[in-house]
Amino acid sequence: MTRLKVAIVGGSGYAGGEFLRLALAHPMLEVTQVTSERNAGSPVTFVHPNLRSRSTLKFKKLADLEPCDVLILALPHGNAAKRLAQFEGLAGTIIDLSADFRIKDPERYKKYYDEDHPAPDKLGEWVYGNPELHREELRGATRIACAGCFATTVILALYPLLKLGVPLPKDIIATGLVGSSAAGASASDSSHHPEREGSLRVYKATGHRHHAEVEQELPGNFPIHLSAISTPRIRGILTTASLFIPDGYSERDVWGAYREVYAEEPFIRIVKVRQGIHRYPDPKLLDGTNFCDIGFEADQDSGRVVVMSAIDNLVKGTAGHALQSLNIAQGWDEALGLEFMGLHPA
Amino acid sequence: MTRLKVAIVGGSGYAGGEFLRLALAHPMLEVTQVTSERNAGSPVTFVHPNLRSRSTLKFKKLADLEPCDVLILALPHGNAAKRLAQFEGLAGTIIDLSADFRIKDPERYKKYYDEDHPAPDKLGEWVYGNPELHREELRGATRIACAGCFATTVILALYPLLKLGVPLPKDIIATGLVGSSAAGASASDSSHHPEREGSLRVYKATGHRHHAEVEQELPGNFPIHLSAISTPRIRGILTTASLFIPDGYSERDVWGAYREVYAEEPFIRIVKVRQGIHRYPDPKLLDGTNFCDIGFEADQDSGRVVVMSAIDNLVKGTAGHALQSLNIAQGWDEALGLEFMGLHPA
Amino acid sequence: MTRLKVAIVGGSGYAGGEFLRLALAHPMLEVTQVTSERNAGSPVTFVHPNLRSRSTLKFKKLADLEPCDVLILALPHGNAAKRLAQFEGLAGTIIDLSADFRIKDPERYKKYYDEDHPAPDKLGEWVYGNPELHREELRGATRIACAGCFATTVILALYPLLKLGVPLPKDIIATGLVGSSAAGASASDSSHHPEREGSLRVYKATGHRHHAEVEQELPGNFPIHLSAISTPRIRGILTTASLFIPDGYSERDVWGAYREVYAEEPFIRIVKVRQGIHRYPDPKLLDGTNFCDIGFEADQDSGRVVVMSAIDNLVKGTAGHALQSLNIAQGWDEALGLEFMGLHPA
Amino acid sequence: MTRLKVAIVGGSGYAGGEFLRLALAHPMLEVTQVTSERNAGSPVTFVHPNLRSRSTLKFKKLADLEPCDVLILALPHGNAAKRLAQFEGLAGTIIDLSADFRIKDPERYKKYYDEDHPAPDKLGEWVYGNPELHREELRGATRIACAGCFATTVILALYPLLKLGVPLPKDIIATGLVGSSAAGASASDSSHHPEREGSLRVYKATGHRHHAEVEQELPGNFPIHLSAISTPRIRGILTTASLFIPDGYSERDVWGAYREVYAEEPFIRIVKVRQGIHRYPDPKLLDGTNFCDIGFEADQDSGRVVVMSAIDNLVKGTAGHALQSLNIAQGWDEALGLEFMGLHPA
Repeated sequence: MTRLKVAIVGGSGYAGGEFLRLALAHPMLEVTQVTSERNAGSPVTFVHPNLRSRSTLKFKKLADLEPCDVLILALPHGNAAKRLAQFEGLAGTIIDLSADFRIKDPERYKKYYDEDHPAPDKLGEWVYGNPELHREELRGATRIACAGCFATTVILALYPLLKLGVPLPKDIIATGLVGSSAAGASASDSSHHPEREGSLRVYKATGHRHHAEVEQELPGNFPIHLSAISTPRIRGILTTASLFIPDGYSERDVWGAYREVYAEEPFIRIVKVRQGIHRYPDPKLLDGTNFCDIGFEADQDSGRVVVMSAIDNLVKGTAGHALQSLNIAQGWDEALGLEFMGLHPA
Repeated sequence: MTRLKVAIVGGSGYAGGEFLRLALAHPMLEVTQVTSERNAGSPVTFVHPNLRSRSTLKFKKLADLEPCDVLILALPHGNAAKRLAQFEGLAGTIIDLSADFRIKDPERYKKYYDEDHPAPDKLGEWVYGNPELHREELRGATRIACAGCFATTVILALYPLLKLGVPLPKDIIATGLVGSSAAGASASDSSHHPEREGSLRVYKATGHRHHAEVEQELPGNFPIHLSAISTPRIRGILTTASLFIPDGYSERDVWGAYREVYAEEPFIRIVKVRQGIHRYPDPKLLDGTNFCDIGFEADQDSGRVVVMSAIDNLVKGTAGHALQSLNIAQGWDEALGLEFMGLHPA
Repeated sequence: MTRLKVAIVGGSGYAGGEFLRLALAHPMLEVTQVTSERNAGSPVTFVHPNLRSRSTLKFKKLADLEPCDVLILALPHGNAAKRLAQFEGLAGTIIDLSADFRIKDPERYKKYYDEDHPAPDKLGEWVYGNPELHREELRGATRIACAGCFATTVILALYPLLKLGVPLPKDIIATGLVGSSAAGASASDSSHHPEREGSLRVYKATGHRHHAEVEQELPGNFPIHLSAISTPRIRGILTTASLFIPDGYSERDVWGAYREVYAEEPFIRIVKVRQGIHRYPDPKLLDGTNFCDIGFEADQDSGRVVVMSAIDNLVKGTAGHALQSLNIAQGWDEALGLEFMGLHPA
Repeated sequence: MTRLKVAIVGGSGYAGGEFLRLALAHPMLEVTQVTSERNAGSPVTFVHPNLRSRSTLKFKKLADLEPCDVLILALPHGNAAKRLAQFEGLAGTIIDLSADFRIKDPERYKKYYDEDHPAPDKLGEWVYGNPELHREELRGATRIACAGCFATTVILALYPLLKLGVPLPKDIIATGLVGSSAAGASASDSSHHPEREGSLRVYKATGHRHHAEVEQELPGNFPIHLSAISTPRIRGILTTASLFIPDGYSERDVWGAYREVYAEEPFIRIVKVRQGIHRYPDPKLLDGTNFCDIGFEADQDSGRVVVMSAIDNLVKGTAGHALQSLNIAQGWDEALGLEFMGLHPA
């Protein structure tokens, strides 16, 4: 069987590097090109040393890209939309890992990204790359806008209750604990090891841009508020969302909702164990995997439910989510190339 | 000047060990006895190696305690109350670092600790050891029940707004990110390094016992909900509390409230900087210090305010808070022995 | 094709759990039994939560073991040898992950393990499970004694020079930096997170038992000295060995030796890059992989060469090494089930 | 008593910041000026947030420096020597934290620093700032070249045996495990948190510049070889040195040597305990302290002794060492301002 030829644009970053890692082990894909302006000419292993003995590819410049089957765009925000025409001339299928095509409504885009969208007429062509919500639209899709990592934890944590129309009487507060890789591969004062290691730093108390995705994707109209805190981990997000269930609705009903909506999902696991030390989702267990683990606990007195969701931000939060979407788009087994089960301990 | 003779009961734990460290450097205190049933006969440096060359004390058994001026009780929950008569015979001043005498109302105690209080008639004699709220009562006090560490972050984060009677229209959600030392010095499956390091684990989604202290200490009647998550840090708590301010109340007003209430506090710092990497409270900066750093950020659209508070759970959360209370009780400079300003980086 | 039925004895530990993880994804193996005295009756996911949705196996008691094709023994030191007859009755192929059958000479065993070997007449039946040194003996082998993790880093670091008979004129000093998982899954005072995290602790300055394996396996007679230091990592060993090359021998010659001996090895990578931040082996890159990365640097003035070797102690140091050996023994592709290339960053 | 007025040049780095922290709490010093070209005009707390509420100083430019009593130079290598005349015009006492004036012999300087020394005629005026070796010369000194951090661990580990003339028959191998703060406050690719955290990376296998200090300071003529490895810690160095004692010399004799030479040293502790988890030096215990902990273990069979030494690289390795030297130079209590005993756990 012929493998699809894949080019990764912006392959020296963490998102592009992660897609590269997954694609190298994928039986239907062949990575033929990887670009990096800064590292053009160097082997990809110079930047991604985990690929030693697994890839002899070298970075090339974007200007030297040749046509291929699938184009993975892993560029800083804004670049994919501005150069879209160029990219559309290179490949039939394009997956964008940035935020450029996630938001359908140009007004909402402008509100959160502080500028007019560079290609508003194109927004309708893109499918939001979240298989759990958009599996049917993804089948055969050729334009996939990969979902944001923090947004994914919030959306997957809340989707079952909202899809089933459970009326949530109060505001929802969702807090994400985020690893350092989510800020990308470029060194900065805030990522300097002596400053970052061991830090618990609120970096986005209010006004997180992923709010735009949450608003767009979750059914219904409800007040939700996001905060994001950096943690000492490298990978991983743990999000806790506090919501309130209506009178007469119990933890058992919550169970039922999650089971009903996620029963067939290959990458969602309900984690809720009575005993032991692994009772709830923990990103520590998910490095390298495409799982989103979800748990919850209800306080019957107050009606508060704490929903927890954990992912590897570079896999289920970015490259794995994208590959799962591509698998669906191509009609392949949805889990192809995403079988890694994670390490314990690690 | 004669130093007060101090005995620390339960000195091989982290709370007792931290009080020992602080007391050894305190100009008005002389530690003469430290107990540990498990380590009786061993030098204190066997357990607390930081004290090498600073103390030649040896642990003794509780049964061998002799009278002294100040008794610091650092025993597991329940022990102080059950043996109170014995301890009252040994010293005029007793400071309990456990939860035994924090709750004034035996009913509330029973609700949260699942048993009748062993000495309900004694509860009225104890002052809740939080200098910011109870400074006047602490002057001359001889029974001090040191405040809980997570409770302290919540109480200090919210006190100004509630004291000033700002009507908070919605539920408050407070989430604490807690270091591993808060669980004590005894090894367990959940504290085993390969399992705990790197973990982000919700260990108390609902039903945290410190809710009892928060209810008791904060003025007014308002709905508040607590969750606690373990983090890879050893020391430190970062609490974020989401609350909603009424229409017409702005971030500037929040500033005013914190300034008004905390202006003279020696150990509370309002941390809210526009630029740089140290914009908000971070427990990473507080190891070994008695500070509680407090910051906040308002979302004018939704009226949500995220209040952040950070402490070292063993200092401002336990032993430092206790020493600050003792300083007040004795009429000494409140900051005596608590001058350490913390390290950067570390 | 029929898969071989595998039973893992002592499957709640880290070595057994890691073999379980690898075997679950191996196309020629089917794990049918896992024992744990402490956790009998519980699902394996209770202890190894990474296996959720991947295995529904439950732990059983050793006494309930039924015959199978391959028995993996992951018991504390001494147990495999003492119960060998029992195990031999259960399976034709036995792989022992403990130290029991690694040492061929009962005298040497006694010297390092302080007791007479329980089954000295059986020692000759076992192949030392290091594929790089014993590939031919492993073909068809039914008794494999998996090599020790620290020993593996030392042996693989030094083997090429000694195999080629380079005369090393001075003593060799080898220091291993070891992650916390190497001490096993049982909680202890030294593994308690507040005590272990961030620690750099010499736990075996002299007298390391793996010296026995190093002596036995490396050709020639030369003085070597080992030390082991615990580090804050969970997985991984980095060993640095200082040796001296004879006059006239250069770094280029060292290169040649490693290339000659390891050219065809699927899991050894020579890592020596002039620029960038990934110039030498680093266990950080190897979690979950079966690679042993080896690098070196020579000081031409003094003739000292620093050889560095890095592995994941649970994979190339234990379970992966064992699986690679089993693949060889069975005549399968040596890399089967060991394809994971590792994460960057992580 | 009048405090000496101190100016810190290069105060936004970690070494300068640490001296600032110590000086702010020192009863005989008053910091009046701190320079930073990059941060001129900002409060020192913008860079060193631990100093909030403890200092209202602002950074100024070097060009704006005014005369003072003591000048602390914390500039990148090469700057102090090149601008020496300017600095000599500003203060009677100068302490340089860089490597510029450590090496007495311009030839040796050139060999290790690859350039001619800019002020070779001045080298003789500077005392090497290691109190344990140069206490007498430090009394009254006005030019102090603070010792290098890794060099300090090696020198203090080996000094007693060499001072007493114990003949060491073989090469000494010393390996330093070093925290990330030793590389300074400037962000770089190698210090980027996702790349550095969890890393064990040999960054200087051979050719470490501190070899120059070790050669100069240790008595006798003996072969020694250094390597340096970066670790996940932020502060701290643990050095292990393997040496060989002559026949007839035992571990008890080693004990005697260390006791004899270091008996009166206020900041050296011999750490060698038979039991428990704190048997040997560990930098984890030393953050913020001026201690150098030293331990050792002998292998009677081979005559190898492993000596271990641990420090906080920013305190005993830099700013604390400098302050101890200044205390001696001024005739003050040597331990003034260096009383912090360190935290446990932390």
